Order: sequence, then structure tokens, then C-alpha cells
Amino acid sequence: MVIIVESGADRQTVDNLIDKVRSLGFTPHPIFGVEKTVIAVVGHKTQEKIEALETMPGVQQIIPILKPYKLVGREVRAEPTVISIAEGVEIGAERVIVMAGPCALESYEQFSHIAHYVHAAGAQVLRGGIFKPRTSPHDFQGLREEGIPIAKAVKEEVGVPFVTEVVDIRDIETLHEVADIYQVGARNMQNFSLLTELGKVDRPVMLKRAMSGTIEDLLQAAEYVMVEGNADVILCERGIRTFETTTRNTLDISAVVALKRFSHLPVVVDPSHASGHDWMVPALCKAAVAAGADGLLVETHWRPQEAMVDGHQSLTPSTFEQLMNELPAVCEAVGRTL
Amino acid sequence: MVIIVESGADRQTVDNLIDKVRSLGFTPHPIFGVEKTVIAVVGHKTQEKIEALETMPGVQQIIPILKPYKLVGREVRAEPTVISIAEGVEIGAERVIVMAGPCALESYEQFSHIAHYVHAAGAQVLRGGIFKPRTSPHDFQGLREEGIPIAKAVKEEVGVPFVTEVVDIRDIETLHEVADIYQVGARNMQNFSLLTELGKVDRPVMLKRAMSGTIEDLLQAAEYVMVEGNADVILCERGIRTFETTTRNTLDISAVVALKRFSHLPVVVDPSHASGHDWMVPALCKAAVAAGADGLLVETHWRPQEAMVDGHQSLTPSTFEQLMNELPAVCEAVGRTL
Amino acid sequence: MVIIVESGADRQTVDNLIDKVRSLGFTPHPIFGVEKTVIAVVGHKTQEKIEALETMPGVQQIIPILKPYKLVGREVRAEPTVISIAEGVEIGAERVIVMAGPCALESYEQFSHIAHYVHAAGAQVLRGGIFKPRTSPHDFQGLREEGIPIAKAVKEEVGVPFVTEVVDIRDIETLHEVADIYQVGARNMQNFSLLTELGKVDRPVMLKRAMSGTIEDLLQAAEYVMVEGNADVILCERGIRTFETTTRNTLDISAVVALKRFSHLPVVVDPSHASGHDWMVPALCKAAVAAGADGLLVETHWRPQEAMVDGHQSLTPSTFEQLMNELPAVCEAVGRTL
Amino acid sequence: MVIIVESGADRQTVDNLIDKVRSLGFTPHPIFGVEKTVIAVVGHKTQEKIEALETMPGVQQIIPILKPYKLVGREVRAEPTVISIAEGVEIGAERVIVMAGPCALESYEQFSHIAHYVHAAGAQVLRGGIFKPRTSPHDFQGLREEGIPIAKAVKEEVGVPFVTEVVDIRDIETLHEVADIYQVGARNMQNFSLLTELGKVDRPVMLKRAMSGTIEDLLQAAEYVMVEGNADVILCERGIRTFETTTRNTLDISAVVALKRFSHLPVVVDPSHASGHDWMVPALCKAAVAAGADGLLVETHWRPQEAMVDGHQSLTPSTFEQLMNELPAVCEAVGRTL
Repeated sequence: MVIIVESGADRQTVDNLIDKVRSLGFTPHPIFGVEKTVIAVVGHKTQEKIEALETMPGVQQIIPILKPYKLVGREVRAEPTVISIAEGVEIGAERVIVMAGPCALESYEQFSHIAHYVHAAGAQVLRGGIFKPRTSPHDFQGLREEGIPIAKAVKEEVGVPFVTEVVDIRDIETLHEVADIYQVGARNMQNFSLLTELGKVDRPVMLKRAMSGTIEDLLQAAEYVMVEGNADVILCERGIRTFETTTRNTLDISAVVALKRFSHLPVVVDPSHASGHDWMVPALCKAAVAAGADGLLVETHWRPQEAMVDGHQSLTPSTFEQLMNELPAVCEAVGRTL
Repeated sequence: MVIIVESGADRQTVDNLIDKVRSLGFTPHPIFGVEKTVIAVVGHKTQEKIEALETMPGVQQIIPILKPYKLVGREVRAEPTVISIAEGVEIGAERVIVMAGPCALESYEQFSHIAHYVHAAGAQVLRGGIFKPRTSPHDFQGLREEGIPIAKAVKEEVGVPFVTEVVDIRDIETLHEVADIYQVGARNMQNFSLLTELGKVDRPVMLKRAMSGTIEDLLQAAEYVMVEGNADVILCERGIRTFETTTRNTLDISAVVALKRFSHLPVVVDPSHASGHDWMVPALCKAAVAAGADGLLVETHWRPQEAMVDGHQSLTPSTFEQLMNELPAVCEAVGRTL
Repeated sequence: MVIIVESGADRQTVDNLIDKVRSLGFTPHPIFGVEKTVIAVVGHKTQEKIEALETMPGVQQIIPILKPYKLVGREVRAEPTVISIAEGVEIGAERVIVMAGPCALESYEQFSHIAHYVHAAGAQVLRGGIFKPRTSPHDFQGLREEGIPIAKAVKEEVGVPFVTEVVDIRDIETLHEVADIYQVGARNMQNFSLLTELGKVDRPVMLKRAMSGTIEDLLQAAEYVMVEGNADVILCERGIRTFETTTRNTLDISAVVALKRFSHLPVVVDPSHASGHDWMVPALCKAAVAAGADGLLVETHWRPQEAMVDGHQSLTPSTFEQLMNELPAVCEAVGRTL
Repeated sequence: MVIIVESGADRQTVDNLIDKVRSLGFTPHPIFGVEKTVIAVVGHKTQEKIEALETMPGVQQIIPILKPYKLVGREVRAEPTVISIAEGVEIGAERVIVMAGPCALESYEQFSHIAHYVHAAGAQVLRGGIFKPRTSPHDFQGLREEGIPIAKAVKEEVGVPFVTEVVDIRDIETLHEVADIYQVGARNMQNFSLLTELGKVDRPVMLKRAMSGTIEDLLQAAEYVMVEGNADVILCERGIRTFETTTRNTLDISAVVALKRFSHLPVVVDPSHASGHDWMVPALCKAAVAAGADGLLVETHWRPQEAMVDGHQSLTPSTFEQLMNELPAVCEAVGRTL
């Protein structure tokens, strides 16, 4: 259930309410919105306990939540969550955020080169894999520890926040010095230990939908992070597994519309992994923005044909630049900016 | 294989070529484009036969086609096919075409009312089911024969072309007096008898993708129509069956991008059946246009809660009007008009 | 709803009941079982009408049916339907029926040879396609009309009933002289015109599940046949479309268990189309029988590597014979015979 | 590639070969079979290096492996791997192994009661979740640390080996005192950190297929464990995600046949999670054995309607006993025992 706190209530009233919730054996999750404060309450409820809460000062209303997700839902927070990634870079607000870069860091030279042109073209966040989860143990697993100083150097050079994937709870601390956003990959969407640990860090988490994860599964996975106290979760649609083989996955564009309706969290789209084809990426980026996405995750490589991973789905510098020139018109057509 | 005819070749040269193709035991399918004429040649080829053709006057080049579809492919026709539906209504050109109306005709009053507001809001084509294929034999199967005079009267009143589904080869003739476009539903995408018969009519055919039809399956189904001589095929993406249950089907937005690349035929999107939710339709319409769709198929009903079929996915008159007001900006952002 | 008729009721009582049902505006479907007679009643019901029926002589009980299918359901008929295919060949009873033969008839020599060894190995029904629905119009479409005299001759020679696919309502009559069972292919599972026409013939219909047909869709498709009066419907599980590409389709073995529980109709399994690999077929045949299937549909070819269609999934004469030797033990293990 | 060692070669020859492989920059994985010894060699190969190996004493043949998995494949080991779970309990041999128990441990009383009847009915391995990965963080997550002494006590009481799921690398050590087999759940099939750590333990690992994992993905996930040195991997088919909603997942029975052909590892089937319905489990168990499975994973509960997790798919004591009485006949029909 969710306790809607009266508009005028001061901090002391809210704290008393939280104590009361706890004393009744529940776990309280206060959420301080711009317009209203709500306390999401998790635990088994009885009529008596509800009545004990209803009579507390500051309680405007108690609303039961029937959905399997609670903290991530619109019932708890009607207004969209805006997450600050770095000075001047916010996701979930009017501006559409482009996160671009190579699938994997390969060398200082490669990453630095890409970072510069990506930044010049207008991307607000740099992406790049350091620890790579690969289907086969015999494939390139990323630069791993060696990639961290490279990422750090390039980030500082270019002056742009950085998102990278974490695949192991033991790497959370290691990556803390470079990751402005921790990415959880599709294969780990239901690695609940990892989600729980990321719920305790002070950085935004970008959670990718599993290949067979339903929209509801994704929202419940996000709940694992939020329930630990980290409210800065970005949801990412990256294509689901279907029978269609023309594309690597099937981009579920309707998921963007559904996620934005059911949840207050920002939603980004990764058309590179969804489609697996560089020539599809620009049109899908436009479709994603038109459908209401708050951001895009775009793979680009200075020399796609030489890329160690996913070269066929990476834009060249010039196609990336062209995309960045064409996107603003689509953003404006749906009331956004780039 | 495809014979590319020399640019300057006159009609007699082309006819001679066609005769030669036929005399070698092949079936010729000449396609007269604006810039070039090609002859698609179907049949088992030998080296000798190819050589016999290569030496014919007017032959610029002979290209083998490796894809399982031939006539529908870009190899045969690089420029997009523009299909004339009625005086002043073309699909496949710059203007995005909106086909709107109820899922099913229910009465003269209902259809007339909807047709008027749909036309007033700017839809260029009217849609409405007369013969309805329904999963259960116990469900409403459409007005059937009784719907034809209603459709005819309303069409003439409003002065707008009409698209309706044909589910039985015996109805092709019956529907000829009202249908400006014959729609083949998803369940009949591989009803090859129906496709073959529609290949012989003088009207455009709109072919919906089957729930489990791959992009290649859809193109080969279109080939069944084209191979009989009817070149006016419109492809329709309407969602595929996946594990996701939030939506009725999963709109495969990447299919729009793929179909436009692989084929010269126009592509429309039906977000109503794809999503099953009225609140998703406007955002998906915008996404479809942004991805490159040539048209949209939108269900709308004057009183959705009373609709005999699919009311929950039908826009109200006012939400439809709002959509038609918002679409032009998206069209312009990708170089189209409405 | 379903009217359960009292055990002792005579024919006149049942006829009176049927008249009453009709006079109330319903459509009656009487089903005469060994143990009890029931009348399935289709139409919109009111409390008054139900009461008018409840007071009729011979009515033991009136049961509402909540499922979307009615005549095919176990509520209407608890005991399994046993369908007589030919003298001494019944499906749905203790004996498991094997239907075997080539995917397509290619010549008299080919079909006669296969028919003989298939019969010798113990198959009770011969299969073979005359009209073939193919994904591409450029592929072999079967011998068509020319195949009918071949099928007729071979059938008589070998003395075995024959199942073949019908893809067009205009072929129902043509095939009547050779088909002991009309097969409806997966692509036509929801070709409701075809189902309706087959509901009027005096032969069993074998209905294959569509590639994306749910178990409920299949049962409702069977209902289209039964509602027209033809109660002899055999359901066929032949694999569904999923993301897995090792197999041509994914054999849904659970569907056998579900169909046998929800419906009284016999269920057969086609492991050849489901898997697409000859080496998988024997193990899947055994699994199907163990799961409760009433029959098997097995592709076999005298020279698989020369087969015009689906050679890679066809058993050779010797692997077919070996399978037929191994199956009886599995049948017996689950209380069946071969 | 794989080095096939000559039949007569002694240990010293093999060790020399291994040293040579390592000195060339490769990683060797020797596999000592009953009939032959092979050394799987992982790393980038050049023609020179291959020649350097070919001339070594003891080398019978060098075979390149084109499949993305190597150590798990039949090329490396033709004979089936038999894994010893406990004194007298082996999986992968003639005897089919039944692993049964509740989805989750709930109390000493519950687990002890179930363990006793499961053992009495003939199950050779006891199953039960201590750490439960649940879609929602608000659902019961298992007894966790408190469950370990319960499992230990019951195991000793009944004298039967125990399989339980590990969801976090930090729990591997904790569970070591009770787990005879570490289970990796479907959601963690591609949690490569977990797989890598389990590759270093001295216990068998049972790896469940992910809901959207292909057969090839599963084999490559198993490769992650084997590559670290743990050769005792059991593969588990537990249903995949498809559009069908009658069942919780779709049991991919063909995967059993494919996995047994492509890999030497034992394969078990979990019909409880695959179907989600207790009434389906017995028929699916029989189908799994008929298809060639080496074992079954069956959920059973003393009071299914009171189970904290998955009660609807748990067999009652009496239906479990009945299943155990019916299975031997099916085992024998395919040359196995129970």
C-alpha cells in the first residue's frame, strides 16, 4: 500500500509516520516528490494495522497497490523521475539523452578517438564496455581491469559522463571510480544479488530488459534496486527474443509506451542491440523518440569492420553525425529537445 | 534472374525479349519503371539458356536473384512503387496515408457517423470490416452481405475510398463493387488460393503479416499476388506473437525498416491490432511514421465502449482528431507530409 | 450452455428438447454419447429462457460453459471421441495410429514404393501431399490434379486409407474420391471458410495447429468444423514458432496433455514438421506416445536425399521400420497398443 | 581443436603433449575417457603451431571444432559422461534419476516429511530451495541461512543426496556443506561470474536453461563451467518462453534429443516448472524419459494448497507415488531402468 501524505505536512510529521509504519512491522519507503510525499509500505497488512495508520496525523489517504511492482509504479509517483547523471546532464526531463560509444573498449587510441567524435556530434553520455558478458567463454571478454585507467583518462579528457556494464558484484567497487551510470545487461536483469547490491550504491543504474523479460518482469527487477534505497533507475528496452531472424532481436517499441505509462522512471532504447544492423539504427532511433523514449543508446565505432565486438551494428563516425543532425527535428515534433 | 533492359530500348525490343524468354520455357514478368525496364524471369535456368538471352538485342545485364522472393524485391525495382487507390490518393509517395474507421460495420448509422468524422479529421481512406474472421464461430462474424449496401452508400456520401477484408475467394466478386483495396488478414497471409485469386483482380491488395510470419514469409506471400500480374500490393505490419502479454501482439517496428529496404512495395502499420490498447495507438502511429511507414491503419469508433468488436483498441472521435493534429509535425520531421 | 439429458430419456423426449431449444432462438447441437446424451446450446441466453428449458421433461442438468469452445470440450462429452477412418481403423481408441508416407507425391513409382513398405512395416494410414501449400510461389506446389489418379491407384493396390491436405474449398470435391481424411495444414488453421465447408463433408478432418496458434485457438478452429455438423475432427500438434532455431519448430508436447484434458477429440503428433530433422523423429514419436497421443504422422521417403520436399526430415525405409519395431514397447508402457 | 591421443599412449606421453600445448600459448583441457583420451585445445591457432603438435609422439589425429562450444561437445568425447552424485547414485548411466522435493524449504517439519515419502517412493535425490530467486523483491525469498541446518539434518536423517540452487557467488561456500549438486537457475544461466566460480568447485553443477536460452546458449554456458576444470555439469531443460499461455513455459522436448546428440553431458527435465500444472507432470515425465532424458526434477509437497511457492505445480504424496510406480515401464521400453 501507499500512504499519501497531506500537502502541508512537515518533516517531523513524516518521520513520525515512518516510525509508526516500522513499529507495525512494515518496511517504509518514503518518496519525496515535488508536489507530494508518499510512503510506500511493504509487508503483510491487516485491517487493524491499516486503521492504526489511517488515524495518524499527516495521512491524507491510504491506497492499496494491486500491481506486483510498487515503488517503480505511477501510483506512488505521478510525476516523471528526473535523474541527474552529471553536472548539466539529466535524464527523464524534456531533453532526450544520447549515450554513444563503442560496444567494448579496445585500446586507449580507439576509445579516445571515438569519445571525441561522439562528444563533438552532441552525445551527452559516453558508453563502452570494460567487462563484457559473452555467450562463449572463448570470446573476447573485454579489457577488464586494464580498461579502467583508459576509461578514466578518456572521460577526463573529453569531460563527459560514462556508462559501463557491471557483471559481478565484486566489480561494483572497482568500477565506482569511472562509472557515472552502472549498466545491468540483459542477461543479468534477474541476477537479484547484483540488483540488490546496486540498490545500495550512490549512482544511477541502467537496467536492460532481459531477452525474455516481460514488461512486468523488468519493472519488478527495477523494484529490487529501488527497495534497497537507490531510486535512480533507468529502464532500457533493447529488443526481445522472438521467431524473427532478420533482426538480432525484436525491438518492442510498445514497451516504451507501456513503461512510461506504468512507471515514473526514465526509459531509454538501444536500437543497436535490438536490430543488430547499422542500417536500421537511425530509423529506429527516430521511432524511439517519437514513441516517447527519454534517451538512446547507440553503438558507434571509428572502424566498424575492425571492431572486436558487434561491428555490424555500429554506426560509422559519419552516419552517427548524420543521425545527430536529423534527430532534433523528430524531438521537436513530439515536444522534446536534443 | 532479372533482365535489365537497355535504357533506350523501344517497346518492340522489349516484346521480342519477352517472347524469347517464353520460348525458352521461362515465365516473364516485365516491370516498367520510370527509369528502367526490367523483366523478372522465373523458371529453372541453364547456362545455355542464359547465354541465349544475353546475346539478345536490348539486354543490358542479367542479374541472378538469390533471395526467395523476386518480383517484390529491390533488385527488380530500385524505386518505390506508388499505388493509386483513387483519384488523388496515392500510397508509397511523399504523403503518409491514414486509413481509419471501425473494426466492423455495425449499422448504417454507426458507419456513416464514423466515416464523416474520420474524413473531416483528414483520413484519406475509410476502413471497416464486412466479413470478419473471428477466432470463435460463436462470435459476431460481421454484417456480411448486408454490410455491402451500407458500405456503398456511406462511401458515396463521404466520397472516400474504402478498404475491407476478404476472407473467401467467393467474396472477391461480391466485394468488388465496394472495395477500393482488398485487405488480406493476418490469418490468411498464407492462404495461397486467396492470394492467387487476388493476383488476378484489378484492385490493390493490402496484405497483413501473419502473427507468426517472418519478414521473408510476408514478402513471399506478396510474391504470390504479384506473380499473377497484380503489382499493387501494400504490405502491413500489425504485430507478431511473442511472450509479452501487456500488448495484444508485439509491434515489430524494425519490420518497417526492413521491408522498405528489401522491397519496393509500400508499407503500412496497424498499431490498433498490434497493441490492443487505445492509449498506445497515438505514440505508435508517430513511431511508425518516424520509422518510415507509408501509411497507418487506425481503428476508431464513435462509442468505443459499445463496439461489437475491439472497442478497447479504438480511438474516440476526439482522440482521433487530436492524433491527426499531432501527426503532421512528425511527418515533416522525416521529410513526409500528411 | 449444455443440457445433460436424463439417462433413460427416449428419442422423442430428446427431439422435443431440441425443438424447444430452437423455438427459444438457440442453435442446438445434440451429441449422442455411449453413456449420455447432451445438447450443446449456442446463442445469447436469458434467465427466463434457461428456466423454460430447466422445466422440460428429460432435462437432468443445465451447465454453463465458460470456455470459448463448447462442442469440442470435455464438458459436453466426457468420454473420448473415437473416429472410424476405414474398416478396422479407428483413432482415439486404445490402438495408436501411425500415418506415414512422403511429404509430397512425386510419381506413381515413388508413391507406390513408399506405400508398400510403409504398410508392410505396420502403418495403418498412408499420407502424402497432392496439393502443397509452399511459402514461395516459385517452389514445387505438388502434382495437383495429376496426383489424384496416382493416389487412387496406390491406395487400392495397398488397401490402406489415405490422408491428404486440402488447401482450397474448390478442391474438397475433387479430393473426395481419394481422401479418407482431409488434412487442414497449419497455414490454414484459421481459414474459416475452408473449415466451415469441411464441417459439411462426411469425412474426418485432421486439423493442424498453426505455427502461432494457441491451444485455445486450435480448439476454437475445431469448433468451426463441428458447429457445421461434422463431429469427426482430429487435432494435430506439429510444432510452434519460437526463438529456437536448432529445430524447424518447437514441438509443444504439453499441448498433447492439455488437448486430451480439455477436449474429447483425438490428438496426433507430427514430429517430422515439428523438428525438421530425421534423427529426432524416432525419439519424439516415443515421447508423443508416452505423453498420450492417439496417433503419429511420420514422413518417410524411399530416397530422402532426392525428395522434392522435406527430405531432411524424412525417415529412410530402414529407420522407419526400426521405429515401428521399437514403438510397441512404449505403447504398452502407457496402456496402449500399436 | 581437439587432439585425439593414440590408444596405447602412456601417461608420460600425454603429459608431454599437455606441456607442448601450453608452451605454444594454448590452454589444454585433457579429457580421460574410457576408450580414448583427448585434449581439447583452446586459443588462436596458426598452421605452424598445428604442425608442431601433429608431429608430437602420441598424437593420433587433430580435429578442428567448428561449433561455438568445445569441451561440452560430442567431438571431444563420444561416450556419455556419467557423473557420480553420491555413493551409488550416478547420472548419465542406464538408470534414470528422479530428483524430487518441494520448491522451497519452509520448515523442518515440512521438509522432513516430504523427504521421507519422496525417498520411500524411490527418488534418488532430494531437491529443495533454500535461496529462492523471485521475480518480485516482495515475495518469499526462501529460508536462506536458516534453511541450511534444516537441510543438513533432513539429509542425514533420510540418507539421500541433495540438490539446491545457488544464486550468489558468496553463497557457494555456505552451501558447500549441504549441496551435493549446485543448481544454477534459469535466470542465472548467463550469470557468467557465477558459472566461472562454480567451475572451480568439486561438486556437480546442474545448469537450467534460460527462458530464452537457445540450445547453443545452454551448451556455451556449460562450457563456462567446464573451462574452469569442473567437468561434472548436468544440463536441465525446464521450458522456454513462447506465446502459449496454457502452460507456464513450453517444455522443449526436442531439446533433450538435441542435447544428447550434440553433447556428452547428462540431461534432466523439469516438467513442474515447464508446465506449471500438477496434472501435466506425470505425462511429461514419461515423455521426457521416452525422449532420452537421464533424469527428472519433480516438485512435490505434502500439502500443495498450502505451499509458499508453486503449490499448483506440485504433486501430492499419492500422485508422486503413483508416478513412481508407472515410470519403470516407460524406462524399460527405452532400455533404461529407474
